[in-house]
Amino acid sequence: MTTGEQPEATLPNRPPRLAAAVLAQTDLVQWLLNCVASVGADPPGITREAFGRGENAAQAQIEEAGQRLGMQASMDAGANLTLRWAAEAPALPPVLIGSHLDSVVQGGNFDGAAGVIAGIAAVAALQAAGLKPKRDIEVLALRCEEAVWFGLGLVGSRCLLGRLPPGALELRHARSGQTLAESIDACGGNAALLRDGKPLRDPRGIGAYLEVHIEQAPQLVEAGQPAAVCLANPGNLRHPFIRISGEEAHTGLPHRFRRDAALAGAEFALELEKLWLDEEAAGRPMAVTIGRFHTPAERHSLTSVSGSFELSLDLRAYSAPHLVALEARLGRIAVEVANRRGVRIELGERSTAAPGPMHPVMVKGLAEASLRAGLAAPKLNSPGSHDANNFAAAGVPTGMLLVRNRNGSHNPYEAMDTNDLVAAVGVLAEWLRINACETGDAR
Amino acid sequence: MTTGEQPEATLPNRPPRLAAAVLAQTDLVQWLLNCVASVGADPPGITREAFGRGENAAQAQIEEAGQRLGMQASMDAGANLTLRWAAEAPALPPVLIGSHLDSVVQGGNFDGAAGVIAGIAAVAALQAAGLKPKRDIEVLALRCEEAVWFGLGLVGSRCLLGRLPPGALELRHARSGQTLAESIDACGGNAALLRDGKPLRDPRGIGAYLEVHIEQAPQLVEAGQPAAVCLANPGNLRHPFIRISGEEAHTGLPHRFRRDAALAGAEFALELEKLWLDEEAAGRPMAVTIGRFHTPAERHSLTSVSGSFELSLDLRAYSAPHLVALEARLGRIAVEVANRRGVRIELGERSTAAPGPMHPVMVKGLAEASLRAGLAAPKLNSPGSHDANNFAAAGVPTGMLLVRNRNGSHNPYEAMDTNDLVAAVGVLAEWLRINACETGDAR
Repeated sequence: MTTGEQPEATLPNRPPRLAAAVLAQTDLVQWLLNCVASVGADPPGITREAFGRGENAAQAQIEEAGQRLGMQASMDAGANLTLRWAAEAPALPPVLIGSHLDSVVQGGNFDGAAGVIAGIAAVAALQAAGLKPKRDIEVLALRCEEAVWFGLGLVGSRCLLGRLPPGALELRHARSGQTLAESIDACGGNAALLRDGKPLRDPRGIGAYLEVHIEQAPQLVEAGQPAAVCLANPGNLRHPFIRISGEEAHTGLPHRFRRDAALAGAEFALELEKLWLDEEAAGRPMAVTIGRFHTPAERHSLTSVSGSFELSLDLRAYSAPHLVALEARLGRIAVEVANRRGVRIELGERSTAAPGPMHPVMVKGLAEASLRAGLAAPKLNSPGSHDANNFAAAGVPTGMLLVRNRNGSHNPYEAMDTNDLVAAVGVLAEWLRINACETGDAR
Repeated sequence: MTTGEQPEATLPNRPPRLAAAVLAQTDLVQWLLNCVASVGADPPGITREAFGRGENAAQAQIEEAGQRLGMQASMDAGANLTLRWAAEAPALPPVLIGSHLDSVVQGGNFDGAAGVIAGIAAVAALQAAGLKPKRDIEVLALRCEEAVWFGLGLVGSRCLLGRLPPGALELRHARSGQTLAESIDACGGNAALLRDGKPLRDPRGIGAYLEVHIEQAPQLVEAGQPAAVCLANPGNLRHPFIRISGEEAHTGLPHRFRRDAALAGAEFALELEKLWLDEEAAGRPMAVTIGRFHTPAERHSLTSVSGSFELSLDLRAYSAPHLVALEARLGRIAVEVANRRGVRIELGERSTAAPGPMHPVMVKGLAEASLRAGLAAPKLNSPGSHDANNFAAAGVPTGMLLVRNRNGSHNPYEAMDTNDLVAAVGVLAEWLRINACETGDAR
């Protein structure tokens, strides 16, 4: 999925002083990674419960690190932490660098936390290089990005930008049982201010949003590069409860009489996989994931033809028109398989999330900063969705850096090399030097 | 699966007196079907529990019907009922007509019982036509043919022929909790006599075994014929617990990195279906049934690639060499799919049952009796296994008639027309007239 084009290689290098200052943050980065690991320790993995002990403790550690850099800490009504490196006379709207500190249960240490730490380290490097901001640079630790806690993801950025769905404040935490409103209030936020659905900050007042995140696929491992500039986060079309109805029958029923729901499910799944491969071959990236795929347990019999079958479908793509086209293809495939197999396929409940394309100016700026920092960062689509989706959807110029990571995410075996994260910090700091410390405007 | 050849159509018709006597049994047949339905009533279906109320009551009804025909009732050590129409001076070994009276839970009225009633009705027709047996004609109500009660099928014929597997007498009844030995003793049998594994009757002393059974597929409905001569009952190869191991992963993992166990399962299943269709096209009948086919419920997630998958496989064929060849093909398909998908496929636990081919002389004799009775009964493979398998395996010349039945078996909607059963009784009676009442020898 790497695009062929690269920024021109005639750009000047970043100042050597900044290069050295970034490298000098390696110990800080490792120290902060160790800190957030210690408060989430849940061998063999990491559990930092959103609005719970782990997330709160990590937020306190990040707050302390920011304050050592002279950053002003504040908490918004969604209980998100903001650390502001204030410009003396800001002439431009602030730049925000965000990610999250919560994890899934028995996840790894890097999904989320690495991005917040990258923001702190970039500020530290700019300061060590003697630079001063011309606009506020803010590092955000956003709450509850993982969907496991409330069955709803990206909660902190939703609160910030007024993008909570109806009823979200009444959702209950999977562990504590508290509502989201109660959880926010218990952590120092103010849920009452979220009830009108308005953003806590006017997105038009945000100059840019940047996020560093580990890659959730091994594309950078394969490419042999420490970091990539993200082109887009995927949107999705989900059908969590697809049902196929055929006819339960005796194993003695000849093939021509069978209406086998399980084999219809098999054919349906492989047709969707073929769609995926065809689309990728045509240069239209997407993904198909079938997490549930099963005959109903209560009907299991060694000698029965399956009369019913269930599956879930998560279909991802990187542009809204592509998702629309894929939904039409999905419908046609369902009809074709149903007709061929003499079964009924009900797609059932449906939800969608809009794709989160990165702003072209941000992509270009990060690619140039990467080249100046000595890195030929490829441009990749992100495999997963991130808080950046909400900023992009709110119209904020948004960019992301993905960091090489072996073994995927949401498991104890996430494996990011600290040096790779420092390489991303170098790109981020160089982008900030150009766009927030001298003359740049991210817009 | 109908064979093209038909017996020569130059055979003389059966005696008109016998034809009339068979038709005159329609009321008896319907009466007995109603009797066994009433003792199994379990709306909307029929439940005649083996070694329980339903089977015992039906056995008593059949016993009474046999005694009205002057047949001698006896119970063997396996608690099977035998009704004997004794020849005055038998010069040949007896002919046995058998089937079973138990049903599955919420099954239909005809699977089993129809065959026992057909035997009674055939004797009644022969008597009404004024015929006398030259050899004993016995009607058997065999116990516990259905596998649901002890996880072991064909129990009565196994007892009779010394074919119980080791430990079978200690299996426990799914409802009563009694062991098979206790169940047999409670119903008037004598399990102690079964412990040495010897047959209760020497199979060499049985002249022939005949069984009438509803067809468990709608081939006769499709062919528009009331009855068929069975060519063979299938043997099987079973793998109840096939496991596929891939790698669980985040939905963001690109296709080229995935080792999706569920999609490997889908491909494996469709390859086995293709094998089936190819074999049928080549004139080698078989069947593939995958009753369990599922991702593990405890790992279900909308956004995860499945790391493991499970399925069951029941593979049927009609000759031992074909089963051997199919097992080799199965192994190759598993290796190919595993290699293509980067997963491991473990076939696991394995069991087999030998095919039960009908004796060619019996097939020929029943086909001729059919033509004499005015029926062009096709020759079909039976979709299911029957007590006849045990007689065939013991070397007894064995033949079966299949009766047209809509809606399969093992469900409340089995649908056999009484007139179709009477048509089969006509074939059976004509076969008995030739082979057991005049000069015939089934061997």
